[in-house]
Amino acid sequence: MTTAEAFQRARRPEQKLQRRDAILGAARELARRDGVRTVSLAGIAAEVGIHKSALLRYFETREQIFLELTAEAWRDWTRALHAGLDTASPGSASPGSAALVADVFARAFADRPLFCDLLAHTPLNLERNVSPEAVRHYKLTSLGAVDEAAALVAGVLPALRMAEAREFVATLASLAGSLWQIANPAPALAELYASDPALAQACVDLAPRLRRTAEILLAGLKAAGGQGQSN
Amino acid sequence: MTTAEAFQRARRPEQKLQRRDAILGAARELARRDGVRTVSLAGIAAEVGIHKSALLRYFETREQIFLELTAEAWRDWTRALHAGLDTASPGSASPGSAALVADVFARAFADRPLFCDLLAHTPLNLERNVSPEAVRHYKLTSLGAVDEAAALVAGVLPALRMAEAREFVATLASLAGSLWQIANPAPALAELYASDPALAQACVDLAPRLRRTAEILLAGLKAAGGQGQSN
Repeated sequence: MTTAEAFQRARRPEQKLQRRDAILGAARELARRDGVRTVSLAGIAAEVGIHKSALLRYFETREQIFLELTAEAWRDWTRALHAGLDTASPGSASPGSAALVADVFARAFADRPLFCDLLAHTPLNLERNVSPEAVRHYKLTSLGAVDEAAALVAGVLPALRMAEAREFVATLASLAGSLWQIANPAPALAELYASDPALAQACVDLAPRLRRTAEILLAGLKAAGGQGQSN
Repeated sequence: MTTAEAFQRARRPEQKLQRRDAILGAARELARRDGVRTVSLAGIAAEVGIHKSALLRYFETREQIFLELTAEAWRDWTRALHAGLDTASPGSASPGSAALVADVFARAFADRPLFCDLLAHTPLNLERNVSPEAVRHYKLTSLGAVDEAAALVAGVLPALRMAEAREFVATLASLAGSLWQIANPAPALAELYASDPALAQACVDLAPRLRRTAEILLAGLKAAGGQGQSN
């Protein structure tokens, strides 16, 4: 049975879930290969082997598909943070703890290129072409992930209050999105940067840059301790 | 004489420059009003009163127009930093100096919504749909502005080396772009955030958030002093 036939025949709830998963899977693969920016609704439909109109029975827009993938990526990222920080000695306030937090966060982002790409597209595009209900659903997931990540940070670094840990997480997530775009220029641009010494400053290596910025943010939050705002 | 007639008649170099300025001016106004994301080449051409094909004699793509506006915005932003920091006592290392730098930078971004909007679009879209030569021209302007801003910071805060001051400026510029998008959601979304207490964390107030993050970055760079990398 071909994928297209399976789509046409699907009637039962579990078959509908399978269809949804197939659409999300196709969008995920195309976005990983070509970048979120270039993937269209028609391209996703073609990859699944169905017509665009069939796809629109499952998702409002292209943006809703990617918002769903972003929610999924937040959950996956949170699991990576748990794996890296759950065994860290709680309550330890050594400089090594901050370095560990910075390293685990930098890798959790840098190991997930699609997540970083999506993070830049979320406020710019994805949240602007879906229903308020879809954004609400997404936001509850992303805010929940930020809270969970912040609790992990505050557990390892008790000098930070939750509001400060949340600031750290939200700031680093915003940066991961924009720095990933800078670190992954179009091929013609990457060549240009490599060939022209005057443009060397334009090159960014994502993981070390995120690690370093995370360390600076943690040191700064510690130094500014007690003056935090929860905004 | 209508704008369209002026375009048809323009032959001399200064008339061509006027045409270019009219195109940039129309793109600037539309982007300020509706957001960079929604402005098309056809929309700019219609605003100027010319055909799309006439516009393409002056600019390669829609993205080149916006890249040119971004370069212009970097120069304008640098002037605002000079206005705010040139009179600051050089060499003073008091906590007040860091607060001043944070405040001047936060306002220089927050007072320039179009610049912030463009900053998010630059690596994501603008640099991906123009010739390498156009990107090179843009990059030399933006890297020059970052250097000039970093020199101002290092002048006011001599504890920072140039590489660290550059890190501060580049990080804050990336954040200004992504935070502006978050701080300026679509109207339907802004209503949703305001009405739902569970989503209150999703609201961002740009100027105070940038000021606070700038203070944290400066405190962190000072604390991490001597361990900086120039990446």
